Amino acid sequence: MTQPDISPIAFDDDKFHEECGVIGVWNVTDAAAITALGLHALQHRGQEATGIVTHDGVRFHAHKGLGLVGDNYSDAKVMAGLPGTRAIGHNRYATTGATLLRNVQPLFADFEFGGLAVGHNGNLTNAHTLKQALVRRGCLFQSTTDSEVFVHLIAISLYATVLDRLIDALKQVTGAYSLVALTNDMLIGVRDPLGVRPLILGRINGADGANPGWVLASESCALDMVGAEFVRDIEPGEIVAIDRAGIRSLKPFAPQKPRFCVFEYIYFARPDSMMEGSSVYAARKRIGRELARESPIEADLIVPVPDSGVPAAMGFAEQSGVPFELGIIRNHYVGRTFIEPTDQIRHLGVRLKHSANRAILEGKRVVLVDDSIVRGTTSQKIVEMVRGAGAHEVHLRISSPPTTHSCFYGIDTPERGKLLAARNSVAEMAKLIGADSLAFVSMEGLYRALGRPGRDPKSPAYCDACFSGDYPIPLTDHAEPRETQLSLLAELA
Amino acid sequence: MTQPDISPIAFDDDKFHEECGVIGVWNVTDAAAITALGLHALQHRGQEATGIVTHDGVRFHAHKGLGLVGDNYSDAKVMAGLPGTRAIGHNRYATTGATLLRNVQPLFADFEFGGLAVGHNGNLTNAHTLKQALVRRGCLFQSTTDSEVFVHLIAISLYATVLDRLIDALKQVTGAYSLVALTNDMLIGVRDPLGVRPLILGRINGADGANPGWVLASESCALDMVGAEFVRDIEPGEIVAIDRAGIRSLKPFAPQKPRFCVFEYIYFARPDSMMEGSSVYAARKRIGRELARESPIEADLIVPVPDSGVPAAMGFAEQSGVPFELGIIRNHYVGRTFIEPTDQIRHLGVRLKHSANRAILEGKRVVLVDDSIVRGTTSQKIVEMVRGAGAHEVHLRISSPPTTHSCFYGIDTPERGKLLAARNSVAEMAKLIGADSLAFVSMEGLYRALGRPGRDPKSPAYCDACFSGDYPIPLTDHAEPRETQLSLLAELA
Amino acid sequence: MTQPDISPIAFDDDKFHEECGVIGVWNVTDAAAITALGLHALQHRGQEATGIVTHDGVRFHAHKGLGLVGDNYSDAKVMAGLPGTRAIGHNRYATTGATLLRNVQPLFADFEFGGLAVGHNGNLTNAHTLKQALVRRGCLFQSTTDSEVFVHLIAISLYATVLDRLIDALKQVTGAYSLVALTNDMLIGVRDPLGVRPLILGRINGADGANPGWVLASESCALDMVGAEFVRDIEPGEIVAIDRAGIRSLKPFAPQKPRFCVFEYIYFARPDSMMEGSSVYAARKRIGRELARESPIEADLIVPVPDSGVPAAMGFAEQSGVPFELGIIRNHYVGRTFIEPTDQIRHLGVRLKHSANRAILEGKRVVLVDDSIVRGTTSQKIVEMVRGAGAHEVHLRISSPPTTHSCFYGIDTPERGKLLAARNSVAEMAKLIGADSLAFVSMEGLYRALGRPGRDPKSPAYCDACFSGDYPIPLTDHAEPRETQLSLLAELA
Amino acid sequence: MTQPDISPIAFDDDKFHEECGVIGVWNVTDAAAITALGLHALQHRGQEATGIVTHDGVRFHAHKGLGLVGDNYSDAKVMAGLPGTRAIGHNRYATTGATLLRNVQPLFADFEFGGLAVGHNGNLTNAHTLKQALVRRGCLFQSTTDSEVFVHLIAISLYATVLDRLIDALKQVTGAYSLVALTNDMLIGVRDPLGVRPLILGRINGADGANPGWVLASESCALDMVGAEFVRDIEPGEIVAIDRAGIRSLKPFAPQKPRFCVFEYIYFARPDSMMEGSSVYAARKRIGRELARESPIEADLIVPVPDSGVPAAMGFAEQSGVPFELGIIRNHYVGRTFIEPTDQIRHLGVRLKHSANRAILEGKRVVLVDDSIVRGTTSQKIVEMVRGAGAHEVHLRISSPPTTHSCFYGIDTPERGKLLAARNSVAEMAKLIGADSLAFVSMEGLYRALGRPGRDPKSPAYCDACFSGDYPIPLTDHAEPRETQLSLLAELA
Repeated sequence: MTQPDISPIAFDDDKFHEECGVIGVWNVTDAAAITALGLHALQHRGQEATGIVTHDGVRFHAHKGLGLVGDNYSDAKVMAGLPGTRAIGHNRYATTGATLLRNVQPLFADFEFGGLAVGHNGNLTNAHTLKQALVRRGCLFQSTTDSEVFVHLIAISLYATVLDRLIDALKQVTGAYSLVALTNDMLIGVRDPLGVRPLILGRINGADGANPGWVLASESCALDMVGAEFVRDIEPGEIVAIDRAGIRSLKPFAPQKPRFCVFEYIYFARPDSMMEGSSVYAARKRIGRELARESPIEADLIVPVPDSGVPAAMGFAEQSGVPFELGIIRNHYVGRTFIEPTDQIRHLGVRLKHSANRAILEGKRVVLVDDSIVRGTTSQKIVEMVRGAGAHEVHLRISSPPTTHSCFYGIDTPERGKLLAARNSVAEMAKLIGADSLAFVSMEGLYRALGRPGRDPKSPAYCDACFSGDYPIPLTDHAEPRETQLSLLAELA
Repeated sequence: MTQPDISPIAFDDDKFHEECGVIGVWNVTDAAAITALGLHALQHRGQEATGIVTHDGVRFHAHKGLGLVGDNYSDAKVMAGLPGTRAIGHNRYATTGATLLRNVQPLFADFEFGGLAVGHNGNLTNAHTLKQALVRRGCLFQSTTDSEVFVHLIAISLYATVLDRLIDALKQVTGAYSLVALTNDMLIGVRDPLGVRPLILGRINGADGANPGWVLASESCALDMVGAEFVRDIEPGEIVAIDRAGIRSLKPFAPQKPRFCVFEYIYFARPDSMMEGSSVYAARKRIGRELARESPIEADLIVPVPDSGVPAAMGFAEQSGVPFELGIIRNHYVGRTFIEPTDQIRHLGVRLKHSANRAILEGKRVVLVDDSIVRGTTSQKIVEMVRGAGAHEVHLRISSPPTTHSCFYGIDTPERGKLLAARNSVAEMAKLIGADSLAFVSMEGLYRALGRPGRDPKSPAYCDACFSGDYPIPLTDHAEPRETQLSLLAELA
Repeated sequence: MTQPDISPIAFDDDKFHEECGVIGVWNVTDAAAITALGLHALQHRGQEATGIVTHDGVRFHAHKGLGLVGDNYSDAKVMAGLPGTRAIGHNRYATTGATLLRNVQPLFADFEFGGLAVGHNGNLTNAHTLKQALVRRGCLFQSTTDSEVFVHLIAISLYATVLDRLIDALKQVTGAYSLVALTNDMLIGVRDPLGVRPLILGRINGADGANPGWVLASESCALDMVGAEFVRDIEPGEIVAIDRAGIRSLKPFAPQKPRFCVFEYIYFARPDSMMEGSSVYAARKRIGRELARESPIEADLIVPVPDSGVPAAMGFAEQSGVPFELGIIRNHYVGRTFIEPTDQIRHLGVRLKHSANRAILEGKRVVLVDDSIVRGTTSQKIVEMVRGAGAHEVHLRISSPPTTHSCFYGIDTPERGKLLAARNSVAEMAKLIGADSLAFVSMEGLYRALGRPGRDPKSPAYCDACFSGDYPIPLTDHAEPRETQLSLLAELA
Repeated sequence: MTQPDISPIAFDDDKFHEECGVIGVWNVTDAAAITALGLHALQHRGQEATGIVTHDGVRFHAHKGLGLVGDNYSDAKVMAGLPGTRAIGHNRYATTGATLLRNVQPLFADFEFGGLAVGHNGNLTNAHTLKQALVRRGCLFQSTTDSEVFVHLIAISLYATVLDRLIDALKQVTGAYSLVALTNDMLIGVRDPLGVRPLILGRINGADGANPGWVLASESCALDMVGAEFVRDIEPGEIVAIDRAGIRSLKPFAPQKPRFCVFEYIYFARPDSMMEGSSVYAARKRIGRELARESPIEADLIVPVPDSGVPAAMGFAEQSGVPFELGIIRNHYVGRTFIEPTDQIRHLGVRLKHSANRAILEGKRVVLVDDSIVRGTTSQKIVEMVRGAGAHEVHLRISSPPTTHSCFYGIDTPERGKLLAARNSVAEMAKLIGADSLAFVSMEGLYRALGRPGRDPKSPAYCDACFSGDYPIPLTDHAEPRETQLSLLAELA
């Protein structure tokens, strides 16, 4: 039985983190503003940096900055510097402590055929291996992002057109990715062959009046924000190329059974997004219902851990008939850091993001519903807080299976050794967290809630590697130890 | 029938705004850190600036800054510069566009008897009149805050002790206020004679081991944050003086029937706070129930306008039996400004703070529940957004009576002419906002929900001037036009 | 014999420092721009902060900032916020480590009769004593500047007009000061009764075409910068009041023999300024000639310590017939701080501001000419540097008498114990500094160079207290120890 | 006759500008601090950005920043992040308005053989041509500097060792350059085959006690600053490689007659530097003497335009016997910008950097001595200022021949059409500038002053292309118009 790794950082939220959101627009009035609004809707997919590249028909223009979308595009001068009816944008979640501005996407490069800007959500599993080969060939890397590997592969490709070079490059990489790219005369969207990461297509009023405008985005909530109409999901392995001649679909990869990331349903996606034609919010409620069916408990209140636990808790309450109450209040004013806790303060077990609603909890048997347990630190503190507010019993219900494995497909997860479920049984976890009982939704229940008959162990419908350890894409780089030489570059700001 | 004043500022939230939160601690280890944590819990009462003054037994120390609590006290050097076991802190909501650092509280002044720091939540209704007299006497004003009037009145008082001088000053002012003050050897808390603004007392482990520590705060949620125990509300007109000899209560004013601000229940206070012994969250749910009883409607869904409308919507749903659903998603990543909207963008009717959950709303008859309508701008946009997401009917239910009058007691409200309810009937408002029906809770219903038999028109239990126009404290300054001479100072940064 | 106090701060220049420069303009087009240009010309009198207050006929406007004039007024928006044809400006040299923005002048206050802005160069010798009395009376101090004492004295004066109140205030203060003040309808200039600090009057094209424009400034170089014509020095004890009716001179003090600060000639004033009708540059050359006459030495080169030692070195070279050479090069790119010196670095005796011109110095007998020795730190390092560059002999000649006493009249000087000349004979100083010989100009020689027959010990023509200890203005505050209570305020940013 | 192009930018100094300074150190304690001090001594060669890369034996470390050296390395944390006994540093003068951080040198790249950092002073005349070829090959450029061409050429070289790759790269470039490079185990210095740009070698105490430390720097003044001993100039076309085995000299280029930049003597170098074994200061004085011999004039005063005109003016005064006086005072407090001049202000002809010393100039016949005339803007204003201060005659003497051609070898010069001497005769220039007479030193006089018998027109001893148009290195890029495609990158911050 291993202790949860109690972090001293008060705002730590003990979640997996999506690593990026992308958007691209074509033939749209005020393309930069529309892109910024779309990025705002995708802000939950990355808050550390943001960038937009536009093309005005003649030239590219760009703005990148650290921090939130709203903070970067509120200046009229910045927006005036981003003319054009075509643009791509990117929100970045950085896994390293210090975000370097040169790593902020979209990346841009000059080629013989013109410029190319690329924004990328996901992770290449052979990026390091490719990078070593490219450096050996004389390629100079300027960022530490996987995405730059794409750009070099395109640069050195012997094919003539951008699309052919892009396909040439894509055939050399493995991994999970959605990407948007902008050339002098084309907007391109790509989804990896298994479709692990999401990418959708929408239609919007065209800037030129005659032709439609197009929007590519990580999630449909970005379409709602900008008044675009949902058309369809980009298919796994599909390349969409949009230019003056219209929209084309290319499928250069051998078809494979899709493996969409199941965690998008559980936590990453915004509840008002549609994925694979389904409402994320409704899916979360259904998972809550399954959870209540599988692990019922006698209680006075169903209390969500806000905000991500709310839909599952609503489903749980509806299924169980036990009242749903806001027994925990979320503080909306949180930042990145707070006072360095002294021992005195640490002893308080302060929760900066959540407060117990004592009047509701006192003397009650409480079922807490949350979406996942990663390190267990937050869960432990919240159970303690709820108990401290007078709850007689605290039962914890989790709307995902235990997260026992790390993700290598574009999600920031702790190394496996830090995952509470990787080292402990459910009973041990309950004890460590201090809950009177603990239950996770089963893998079968999860698949049922998503409308599948169950999980086919030979060929599951989703990528569920974080629960099952069944990694559908080879972990090339992961096989060998990361070599140090090339990481020297990371030192340089 | 007058149009709502549609504001171009995308983040405008069309709410009344609390003007400040205060806290004071005595005999507490790490007083500055405890004060900062308490201010964090009170962040909803003011986000524009924050300040802490500590006393280490010999000297005062201070830090003030613009922005959020978390952003101002995360630096270990700042905290190291705030030693001592006594402190007061203040969160400021500024009504003017530019917040001047010199207006940030606590204010501090050197007197013959030593230093005095003052933090103040509320508004003096004769501040301007007093200020003119003080200037005539030779007093120099350095800030444009009401609070400085207190300080000058204390400075020129002929009494000998701080407490006597404070009482002398308080007897000259009219208004609604809670204040905390720190002298070289005393922590003082004051609540105005009618108790319009809240102030509560809590107990905490004493730094010296032998005596208890004390906490004064605007709301009880600050006590929960710092692990303090709720003792009682400070009474209207009460002065609490805490020093080495212990805690004393003084009541220098003629007793009056209290008139606590009813809007604290409706919107201002955090739902996990207790006011007058009651849970704010529970009160909001009861108001929602009253609203459902008074203005029922056949519908498919009850949808709150998040987050402030949630408890009332839950009460409404419980009473009506109609399902409660999160049909509107709140975007947590909002800032102060965003892109300057072009006509194109404005036409989108973009809602940066809220998104419609289209899958839930489509084809449904929806009851939206919100806490209040001020200018009507937000309500109009939200109704339009919900309808745009496919709702067949949109009914709006408001958990307060119509806000027909401005507040002069420490709340930032638009001038009366901009209040939608001041100029339109409920039917007209429904039409302007575009709702299929609109209803407000009645004044009687509101009082019932708060556990009162009803509203005694001769002597109501609350200050409800924003609904009734019945102002319990004379509006001295308001009678005469604000003179320009003294406001020159406001120009100077 | 006491060691020079070798400072680790590499940019330390071991000089006395002027504490401020002031300017005021009346009836001038673009008053703020003209004021900024004048402040730029007066930048040598204070580099830590700067402020301008203008009046546009109706309202006051202000801008204050830390740092240089050029850095604060280059923004067109800042200048647009300073309309009007009347203005006063101030450059501040702060003696304390941290310059607080609220101490930056001009100070501004609202009075019964309107607003008043005040900028002040100098020091009140009874400021502390007055401040205590004012606090006892109930006055609240917001800055730690002497100048605020003026403002309170004006505020509480029982006289009716601004001028009468100002005179009332001036009669209560003792000290050395030049001040400029701006009211709603008047520009005022004042020089202290002994005329210790300088203030001059100039004429410029009037904004209204009909009447002349006026400029008051600390030095005539500010007039040259803005194209104004020198009119005359403001006389000691004179008040000049400029309004729509024209310019008036008031002399409310009993006449005294003037005691202008002799150090303005030696170091403070810019060489292109005129003081008392004489060129500062020519005076410095004459002092150099006297020095050569009094303390000749056989040598190969006369080398100035740039830039302040240059004119005296030129005079010395002319008188002695020995060639003048730039044997020390000044580095123009110096800031406030540099790398923290390690022992290794400190051992280098690095001179960031000066470099030896080795090719010129090698094998030569060198006379170094500098204007003063304060702590001796710079002199020691420079002599060592010149010797290290190969000079065979290094003789030091100083164009002022030994500085044996601190200044209390507006100049930042070390406390007496740190003045090398206060603790050592000239021979000891030579040994400590490492010079082969050392000589100072005599007091008689100094007076002769300034066109005086000599120094009348009973009634000297200048304030030369830093050389003689003969303080012409009572040091009221200095008599008693500075009390701590009131300085608490200084803690608060 | 063409008008001088009067610039509205008040601080414009109408000079040619050196484009960079470099330094490298090996086996030196506190290598980063020593490098920073050396860069401080070289600050006159570039003030817009600065960078240091160190190697601690295992890893590289870097810091880059905009602005002055002193501002970038004063933070102890920054210095602590730069450990090691080897380092290179760079000061950048940027020719474009906005300095991009990614253009700040040293550049760094990861290669197969390890890391390489490069700092570069000069200009490649075929950089653009090479860049096009490299892009065609698939190389991605991340900066807009010439220096990146070096790095790519090294990356793609088929040779095995760094030195061989470097030589391979150098053989492909043409231009004037000095460069320092740091690899995992070597410090390298290179001077271009003609030795147009300077680079010198010095020795310093070794960090390891056993072996000497080495310093490479653009000028010898950097050696004096850090206590290093001058060893020799790096020879034209020489590569110096320093590693654990000691110091080696390679000369891979066919020997050519050197063509050192004569303008280093006239203006660029610091007067205390030694170039080709001669004192720059003494050379400037000798040029002044030649100028006086060639173009004498009856006058009362010789007045330098400070600071660069001072040595030549001293030589002129000594030769002519006319007194040398500081008739113009330089203002040391100048920044990059100042108030936007209104017409009113512009009309003043304000000189922010220089003031006339009216008392000295009034009624006099004045000879102004300056080092060069570029656009003529400053000369015109200074002559006007001196005349405005009362000078009866103003004669201008210039210590360089007329600058009739642009430089393409690492100096920032206006395009030829903006050079006053390219479009006007000396008589016309005198008229335009408003001088009573104007004379330049002759080419022959200049060569004589530098110790040469005269100028051999077939094979001059110096690069004097800016005076003669005789460009010793082919201007490859200059032949064809700069293509736009690749410059797109420049848009992206």
